[in-house]
Order: sequence, then C-alpha cells, then structure tokens
Amino acid sequence: MMPYRIVCQKCGKTLPKDKWYWQDDCGGALDLFFDFEEKRFQELVDVKQQGIRRYAQFLPVQDLPFMHVGWTPIASRVIAGVEVNFKLEYLSMGGSFKDRGAYVSVAKARELGAKSVLVDSSGNSGIGFALMGLASGGVDVHVFVPSNAPEGKKQLLRLLEADVHEIDGDRMQVNKAALEAEGESVYVGHWWNPYFIEGVKTMAYEAQEQIVDFVVAPVGSGTLLLGLYKGYEELRSLGALRKMPKMVAVQACGYARVCEDLGVWKDCVGQSKLAEGIAILEPPRRGQIVKAIKSTGGHCVIVDDEEIGLSLTELRRFGFIVEPTSAAAYAALRKSMEMGLVKPGNRVLLPLTGSGLKMIDELVELRKGQSLR
Amino acid sequence: MMPYRIVCQKCGKTLPKDKWYWQDDCGGALDLFFDFEEKRFQELVDVKQQGIRRYAQFLPVQDLPFMHVGWTPIASRVIAGVEVNFKLEYLSMGGSFKDRGAYVSVAKARELGAKSVLVDSSGNSGIGFALMGLASGGVDVHVFVPSNAPEGKKQLLRLLEADVHEIDGDRMQVNKAALEAEGESVYVGHWWNPYFIEGVKTMAYEAQEQIVDFVVAPVGSGTLLLGLYKGYEELRSLGALRKMPKMVAVQACGYARVCEDLGVWKDCVGQSKLAEGIAILEPPRRGQIVKAIKSTGGHCVIVDDEEIGLSLTELRRFGFIVEPTSAAAYAALRKSMEMGLVKPGNRVLLPLTGSGLKMIDELVELRKGQSLR
Repeated sequence: MMPYRIVCQKCGKTLPKDKWYWQDDCGGALDLFFDFEEKRFQELVDVKQQGIRRYAQFLPVQDLPFMHVGWTPIASRVIAGVEVNFKLEYLSMGGSFKDRGAYVSVAKARELGAKSVLVDSSGNSGIGFALMGLASGGVDVHVFVPSNAPEGKKQLLRLLEADVHEIDGDRMQVNKAALEAEGESVYVGHWWNPYFIEGVKTMAYEAQEQIVDFVVAPVGSGTLLLGLYKGYEELRSLGALRKMPKMVAVQACGYARVCEDLGVWKDCVGQSKLAEGIAILEPPRRGQIVKAIKSTGGHCVIVDDEEIGLSLTELRRFGFIVEPTSAAAYAALRKSMEMGLVKPGNRVLLPLTGSGLKMIDELVELRKGQSLR
Repeated sequence: MMPYRIVCQKCGKTLPKDKWYWQDDCGGALDLFFDFEEKRFQELVDVKQQGIRRYAQFLPVQDLPFMHVGWTPIASRVIAGVEVNFKLEYLSMGGSFKDRGAYVSVAKARELGAKSVLVDSSGNSGIGFALMGLASGGVDVHVFVPSNAPEGKKQLLRLLEADVHEIDGDRMQVNKAALEAEGESVYVGHWWNPYFIEGVKTMAYEAQEQIVDFVVAPVGSGTLLLGLYKGYEELRSLGALRKMPKMVAVQACGYARVCEDLGVWKDCVGQSKLAEGIAILEPPRRGQIVKAIKSTGGHCVIVDDEEIGLSLTELRRFGFIVEPTSAAAYAALRKSMEMGLVKPGNRVLLPLTGSGLKMIDELVELRKGQSLR
C-alpha cells in the first residue's frame, strides 16, 4: 500500500485515516489521493496476481482478503469501423462491477474495526456488499431496500445472509433510514463512499493495454465513471498512459441531471423504467462527474427505453446476457456514432456492468414486448 | 489447426472428416486424435489471445468465430492443508463450462455446412448451444426438453432464440425424439458428440500452470472429466506435463454407474434431486470414463443431497454462487480428504461448473430446508 490522504472536495480539509468517514462535517464528499513517490506503474504492479490484488499497492487497505475480484475478460469487436472493447464486468462473482468497490470497502471497514456495514441498495451494490461481507468472514451486512423492491433481489440478498431491512417509502427515504441506523455499523453506500471508487478504478488498470479513445459508462451515482476516470488519471500520472480517453456519460430519460448540466437535453416520453441501475435523481458527486467529462473532452448521452431495448437485443445476439442498464451504454455508443462523435477508426472501452442471469423473467417479458424481436 | 483423425472407439475404424458424425455405424462413440508433429505445447499456443482461440491449433475447426469463451479465473484457497484451485467456470457467458464444448461444436457444424443443430438438454448444455448458435450468426438451434423441465430454463432458452421442443416423457424419450428429428439439422448432444470434448479439454490447458495432484469432476455423461483427461493427456504427450493428475469422478445417489463399475457403493436414501446436472442413468462413454480414472490412479465418490446441500452452503460462504451440481464436487473432495485419499500438501483442481444466478429461487428454497444454515 502506497501512502495516501483523504481530502474533502468541498472545504479541502484532510481527514484522519483511523476512522471511517463517508462524508465530511461540512457536507462535502471525500476523495483519496495517493502519493506514488515518482514510481512507475509497472514497478507497483504485483504481476504474479491475476485479480484485484495485483494492484494492492494502489489500494488503501493493508491486508486484502484472498478472494477473486476483477480480472474480467475483454471481448473486442469491430462495429461499423469502431473497435469496441466490451469489458465483461458482469462475469464477476456477484454478477456486476460493484464487486470491486464492495471488496475494497468491506476490507477497509474491517481494518478499521467495523463488525458490520450498512448500505442502501436493492440492486447490484447490495449484492456486492452482501457477497463480500459473507466471504470475508465476520462482517455483517445490513441492506436497506424499498419494500416494493423486486422479490428476486431480496431473495438473493437473503441467500447471501444479508440482513434485509424493508423501508416503506421512496429511494430517498430508504437512504435516510440507512443513515439513521448508522452507529455500530458503518455506512458504506456507494453514492458517497470514497473507498468504493478506489475499487472501481482497478478496471482502468486492467484495461490499460487496450489504448482507447473513448470510455462509455452508464452514470447513476457516477461511481463507475469516476472510478474509471481516477484509474486513468493515475495511469497518466504514473507514466503508463500518454493521453486521457474521453469520458462519455450515459443517462436515462428522467434521470439526466449530469447531461443537463452539460447542456444536453432529450425529448423524453416519461421516465425510464428499464435503466434501474442508473435511476438516481440527484447524484451527490454530480459536479465531480461533470468535471471529469469536460476535462477529457467527453460528452453525455440520454437514452430512452426503446433505445435500451433494441440495444439489449443486439447485445444478446453477440452472446452477452446483460441487464438493461448495461445496454444503455451500448445504445449511447450507437447514438454517438450516428452523431459523428465517435468515428470509424476510434477505439472504445465499454464495460458491460451487470449480469442478466439474475433477471431472466424480466428479460423475457421485455422481449415479448418487442414482439419477439 | 493441427491434423487429426476421427476414430471409432468400438471398431477402431477411421471416419471421413467431411461430414458430421455423432456415432459410428457400429454404435461406437467417436474420438479425435491429433498429430502434433513432435512440436512442443508452447510452440502451438497463440499467446496473444486470452480465450479459447489461444488454443486454435489444438481444435478441429479451421475458422473459430470471434467470441469470448473460456479463460476463466482460478481462485486458490488452502483448506485443511489441501491447496484447492477452484476454476470458476460458472463465470462464462452462458453460465457454465458447457460453453466451451458448444462453441467448438457449433463452429464445426457450421464449417461442415450445417444450417441448424439439435440437442437434447434442459440445462446448461442447451443454454450453451443456444448462446453459441445465436452469437455465431446463422445457425439455428433446436433444443429438445422434457415438457416438465423448469419454466425458467425454457425461458432462458427462448430468450436466446432457440426453438424449444417440449416432449412428453422421460429423458430417454427426449433423446429418442431428438435423434428422430435429425435430418436437416445435425445432432450435437454432448453425451456422444466428440467435438464437445475437444472444447472442454481447453480447460486443462488453461489450468496447466497450476500443477495439481487431483482433478475433481462431477460425472453425468462424463464430458467434463473426459475433456480434462484429454487436455492433460495432450499436455503430457507435448512435454508440458510430467505426470497425469489423478482423476476423481463425483456421482450422485441413484446415478452412480461409473462408481459402481469401480466397486464403489453407497447406502443411499433415494435418488438425488439436487444434482440435476449429473442425473444420467447410463452414460454412453462409461467404459472410457472408468478407464481414465483407473489409468491415473484416481477414484470415484458418491454423494447424497445432504452432503451437496452442506457443501453448497460452504461454497456460498466463500462467495461462490453456484448450482448444486458444482457443490457435489466439493462435497466429494471433503469426503476424499476425510477418507485420507486426498492429504494435506496435495494440490487439487476443482471446476465450479455452473452459475447459481440462473436458479436463485431454488437456492433460497434449499437454504430454507436447511433451517437457514
């Protein structure tokens, strides 16, 4: 582990490292900054490891548990002249890229003495935390979900021995209930949690041999985009990358604050029902996301459910059984190509974020709705 | 592609290679034998590829489609002094190791001019074929299933655009119906299909850097064990391996003909309901399986549903969400350790064959039955 600092984005204060903070007193979000002591990237990589522990030096945890996290395959395909590198994040133990962030967060919480963690999520993030808590031994995981969350997801959380707390109310009320319950447990929700981003950034390290011009990421809370941005930024500062790829944010109808901040609007018919993984009205790290997109010369795309559905069918015909949120990214790439923002000869990294095997019934229903397209 | 021959196991005849055969006229099963022309393993590997196409020279197909198959992670763990290398085959695009065999089979059928293939399976093998047919473009997949097969599996098959044929009757009648339908389509069922084994053998190539003493494989039709055996045999003949690992076959109560041939019996209370992936009464390649076990000094273990259930819980606590058939192998390893057949210091390869994400409801039910153990 290389030395690092925890800094508040809002007031610039450096926080002590012996306690778990998910936010500064002033209300600001926290970020970690490593000091790589002028070393080069390859010097710090443990090449014997095939998985997230390969990057132990870049992670803020002393002892990383022995588990298989990350190291997902890349499947490349040339589509209308564009080289698309699909990073198959859905082939992870918990079925999504969130395993990476959950792994680092649970390891850190444990190192700081936490016996239990709590998180608000009914989706992949909750599953990732439940899995990491269970497998790392001795960390209880409390998951706060809306009482109307799909039964299947609650079942999977219980299978992974999480304590599931059902809250009557919307997503914001669930968040409030989770925060109120903090005490013995530490709050690790990925909307704020800076350690989560540290886990996600390892995806960029793994992909660095594929030099790309664009990175296309679905943006809800922005963890994925910010994690990738951070990973590439570090690669650049370590001399392993000459030029930052352009960050492309993908949002869905009704949940497009980041795009709107960048002046991108879409004439939507209602809110997206399909892109549940990114259906977040007010991402706390919104300003940071906008900055990452602007500073790399990227752009933002809003997609609707029809576009997501068509994209899901196309991905399935490539053999990728993914959830609709993953298909949103591919729909946005298609649109970016049509608009001439991504051109033949360009190279793209496109993470396929979550597995569709968890929701076969929904996928079948969706296909019926498309008249068996 | 290196030169190879197709030989009948029963009468020893060499068959022509310009047509698809799943069996010889004499009723014998077919095997492929490669001539590696005294080359060494490393000379034949395409190290630039990370996936099954790395081993293109070892596969009986001229042009392998661009798809991500294989290259699954290995998660190692020392358990009671034994080094267990879990090969996470369930983190495949179709959720099981059967993707490997289906990939090679569909590619070969296509090369021989087939426009459609047919297979009898309601499980992972059907899913693997449906996925490969869909993704390789232009190969229709007909899947014959018992009409009482779980609705969820039929749904997944339809999602993957397979033609699902429901047959009233038991597994043998489904097999009969599939064979009778052969005509335009070629029969690729993995009980017989020699190309399927060629795909599975690549798992041994990938694992060869982990030198192991034992390989533990669930045995239904025996495709997995025979594929691994073939891969290791070729590695040995190519000078990449000094000593064959001992092949350990795992069977379930009521479906244990291979074990019985080896003189292993168990006092079972009824047939296994959990190990559906290996619930095959009469595997056609039984003699060949027995020979592989004997020639390597391996053994056979019969497990019951209680042992499988306990093992499933233990695997889940390692973070592995797998199907019960995969847990049968770990249960058998535990028993082999108790019996002193596998000792502290030994190294084991244990493929985790299939994903549990396809059957969360069943896994939750099972956990309830175990009083939430």
